[in-house]
Amino acid sequence: MNLLGTVSPSSSTNLAVFNSVLHIGSNPPLIGVLFRPLTVRRDTYNNIKQTGHFTINQVNTTIYREAHLTAAKFEEGVSEFDKSGLTVEYAKSFKAPFVSESSIRLGCTYHGEYLIKENSTILLLAAVELISVHEELLQGDGWINLGKSNATVANGLDAYGEALLLDRLKYARPNEPVQSLDNGA
Amino acid sequence: MNLLGTVSPSSSTNLAVFNSVLHIGSNPPLIGVLFRPLTVRRDTYNNIKQTGHFTINQVNTTIYREAHLTAAKFEEGVSEFDKSGLTVEYAKSFKAPFVSESSIRLGCTYHGEYLIKENSTILLLAAVELISVHEELLQGDGWINLGKSNATVANGLDAYGEALLLDRLKYARPNEPVQSLDNGA
Repeated sequence: MNLLGTVSPSSSTNLAVFNSVLHIGSNPPLIGVLFRPLTVRRDTYNNIKQTGHFTINQVNTTIYREAHLTAAKFEEGVSEFDKSGLTVEYAKSFKAPFVSESSIRLGCTYHGEYLIKENSTILLLAAVELISVHEELLQGDGWINLGKSNATVANGLDAYGEALLLDRLKYARPNEPVQSLDNGA
Repeated sequence: MNLLGTVSPSSSTNLAVFNSVLHIGSNPPLIGVLFRPLTVRRDTYNNIKQTGHFTINQVNTTIYREAHLTAAKFEEGVSEFDKSGLTVEYAKSFKAPFVSESSIRLGCTYHGEYLIKENSTILLLAAVELISVHEELLQGDGWINLGKSNATVANGLDAYGEALLLDRLKYARPNEPVQSLDNGA
């Protein structure tokens, strides 16, 4: 699960929990977010369209209740940062707010979007401009051990799971047995 | 993680592990799969386009090594079912093969696709025609407890995590504390 942080043109911060974040590509680094139809107020989407920037902050097991609360329908202009108790943090030269309590974070810039005509959802594409990862999660080969990050995963609309590391495997080749890779843990 | 099962027009079965399966909508029930660019042979994509059908089979902790092996570059016409040891199962009136060892499975029919022009990936959309879930995973209110299914999650390209249930929460409302929902576990 992830929290998307944005700021409105009038400088109101917004934070919203999202399940539908999708890796689109690594070169160039692109990430996608699926938005529900624009039939009601969509602060996150509107802020991204107006300012061009947003942050993606991993929800860990310490903050999943705070993350869930951001889904409540607060009045316009109320910041989910204030209501949830999560802490705003800014990275220099990046305009959207990060969540201080999150250990894996991306700073993203709007790139384009595709209207999914079948149900009026919107696949928004963004360039990954900035990556912030707590050092202890990063292995020597660049792999991030999510098992050490207390990562949460969605289980439907209202349940949260915890992801533990099961195994890291060597590159699969025909007619070779599958072997574990030393994950450095 | 999920395994996509397909069959070619000449009746060769194919099985491939995918991370990029995305919930698109529930009414109508639509699911998306992001495919990498068609610069090399993409059996799964080609089979779906030619036959119209595929299955999505949850990878559990018992079969993650077999699932990983399906990513090896086997020769054309070799079935990953045979090579991995996973068992083909058919549901009556549905043409694509299911994985017998998987406890959460969808039967899907091609609906359309969007070319992501930024990097030539393809978001394929499919209608969910059939849902097969082991009965012990299903709660009375229709929620599926993924924690009981030994679900795996991706951690990068080569690592697999295990998802345990952390909590199920009540609908979030402004100015009400977040509370756990009885998850029936």
